[in-house]
Amino acid sequence: MNEQTEFLTKLIQTNSENGNEAAISALIAAKLQEHGISSKLLPYSDGRSNIIAELNPDAPGKTLALSGHQDTVLIGDRAKWHHDPFAAEIKDGVLYGRGAADMKSGLAAMVFALIELHDTHFAGHVRFMATVGEEYGAMGARQLTKAGYADDIDGLVIGEPTLPNIIHAHSGSFNYKIIARGQSAHSSMPELGVNALSLLTDFMIAERTAFDDAPADPVLGKLVHSVTIAKVGSQVNTIPDYGEVAGNIRPVPTFDNEHVIERLKEVCAQLNAKSKGTLTFELTHSFRPVSTPADADIVQALQAAITKQNGQPAPLDIIHGATDASEFTLANKQLPTLIYGPGAWDQAHMIDEHVALSDFENAIKIYADLAREFCK
Amino acid sequence: MNEQTEFLTKLIQTNSENGNEAAISALIAAKLQEHGISSKLLPYSDGRSNIIAELNPDAPGKTLALSGHQDTVLIGDRAKWHHDPFAAEIKDGVLYGRGAADMKSGLAAMVFALIELHDTHFAGHVRFMATVGEEYGAMGARQLTKAGYADDIDGLVIGEPTLPNIIHAHSGSFNYKIIARGQSAHSSMPELGVNALSLLTDFMIAERTAFDDAPADPVLGKLVHSVTIAKVGSQVNTIPDYGEVAGNIRPVPTFDNEHVIERLKEVCAQLNAKSKGTLTFELTHSFRPVSTPADADIVQALQAAITKQNGQPAPLDIIHGATDASEFTLANKQLPTLIYGPGAWDQAHMIDEHVALSDFENAIKIYADLAREFCK
Repeated sequence: MNEQTEFLTKLIQTNSENGNEAAISALIAAKLQEHGISSKLLPYSDGRSNIIAELNPDAPGKTLALSGHQDTVLIGDRAKWHHDPFAAEIKDGVLYGRGAADMKSGLAAMVFALIELHDTHFAGHVRFMATVGEEYGAMGARQLTKAGYADDIDGLVIGEPTLPNIIHAHSGSFNYKIIARGQSAHSSMPELGVNALSLLTDFMIAERTAFDDAPADPVLGKLVHSVTIAKVGSQVNTIPDYGEVAGNIRPVPTFDNEHVIERLKEVCAQLNAKSKGTLTFELTHSFRPVSTPADADIVQALQAAITKQNGQPAPLDIIHGATDASEFTLANKQLPTLIYGPGAWDQAHMIDEHVALSDFENAIKIYADLAREFCK
Repeated sequence: MNEQTEFLTKLIQTNSENGNEAAISALIAAKLQEHGISSKLLPYSDGRSNIIAELNPDAPGKTLALSGHQDTVLIGDRAKWHHDPFAAEIKDGVLYGRGAADMKSGLAAMVFALIELHDTHFAGHVRFMATVGEEYGAMGARQLTKAGYADDIDGLVIGEPTLPNIIHAHSGSFNYKIIARGQSAHSSMPELGVNALSLLTDFMIAERTAFDDAPADPVLGKLVHSVTIAKVGSQVNTIPDYGEVAGNIRPVPTFDNEHVIERLKEVCAQLNAKSKGTLTFELTHSFRPVSTPADADIVQALQAAITKQNGQPAPLDIIHGATDASEFTLANKQLPTLIYGPGAWDQAHMIDEHVALSDFENAIKIYADLAREFCK
């Protein structure tokens, strides 16, 4: 087993389901240190830390950021796995385990790209950032962004599994609640109460058409929206005085998160003006959409690196799922950003998650060449 | 303390929150036996029994049934009570406790009316029935009705607290669920799923107007309907494939329980024909409306008894709340039925529930005179 695969194996064997990223950071720091690259921890909480490493921070020219997250989602039903999710078993050149695709292979490939660049005396400025909590809240990317780590970068690649594509745009993800407050009454005299479920029905009716006028994004298309949870009432003979629904929206650059908040508040205000009850908007999570023009420098640099390795460029595609890029781009909404990494997008969060080792090794060379192309 | 009040006190001191009616039946049987009246238990389940006592079952003329329930609702928050709910404290002629109004005072008054009639050698046929589980499901009245105890009666009085009124009609109560089955999908691609909450929103929209054409009852007015519970979804990023809402309807004789079932099934069928998902109607409880003409014999008999006692007749009124009468009248939908008993309707289920002892003692005489008037 080569050094790269051995390192990836260790990352997968170190369980970081929804946390424990400090153990991953420690492995990364040790591996970089072994190769003469220093790194810095940015602790998030007990047992959780982001890690940052830089090559040539004072170099002139463009700065490239390579970033990945250290946490994984839960393994789900262990009994359904045909491979121990924490054993990193290899069979016929394929490595299995939680995080094999999403995204410990991308993370390890970035570490070894950094090592290769360092070993070959690369002179450009590359910043490697590994985050905490991408799978639930993106707190690490938020913390790094607030600390200024996204302020001075000219291009960003997130190493989520996207093969065979390059992802140049993804929608945002926006979770909210609508709280209804009415007045309870006996169900034999509903006119003495204000039915919170009826208030929420009014909201759900309005929500159906609330975004009809949102202009489609040329790349990401129409904004997507659904109400997916309702929790109202407990006694069938009582008009409920409280209830809530929750919804998810996928904002696009042409109707982004700020527009969505404004629109939802508007809907509530219009309904409140006509009713005896109150609907209140409450934000749960807000991740921005990210979109980079297909002809941006960073696309050309990544395609050059991919072509060198694979003999042909990769298709450009989009996804509907937020990444840490939603947070990093808060520092600069025009920041050229791509999502590209070993493993397939549909492997993320799956039973028997896996990555082809050849794709992992390819990615190391592609990330290194990307830096050489982009920072020159 | 007189014998009547002492007995009522014992009933209240015997906790029968949602059960334990056998202990109440035992007290009733013993008291009747003390006065030479035999009785019969109709067990429902462990610790739960209905009790029946008859005067002159073979007498010619009309048969009057007097009925009450032995269970009470829960006391709720004990800390809010200013009187121990099971102490039957008496202050200034008012007795406090769970069941004081709903309806241990009515039940005890019926027991002593039976004793008075027996002691005064009354010759008519009176059937006394005390039920289990009126507060949740009316299982006792259903059991008695199935056993034939309502087949041969000509008039029924339920001793629920109604002072100062006689209730000659009440709406039914009808609880149902609508189950929605759709198809789950990631919220970024709702078009791949069928949103169970959206199916239920369609139902709730239709429910708003589904009974608009139901003819108003001349006594009970319009049918009343509400959807009061919704339980749908658990993950905001997943289009829910299952959900349910529950609703309550107050059927009236002009649009009764059978009409309601038919209408709700129709609404589901119409929506199902237009959607990829399925809505299913499920019946939870169905209690019939009860309505007796204001000039019925039983009204005149009761008014005569009340006038003898109080110097004036009582106002006739209606309530929106089902009683055991919904079950008993399944044996005979035209059975003349009144609800009349000591205590006020708005005391039912309340903290510091109470009854005036003078009203309790009056009720004994009124029930006895009612039998004398009705059966003659």
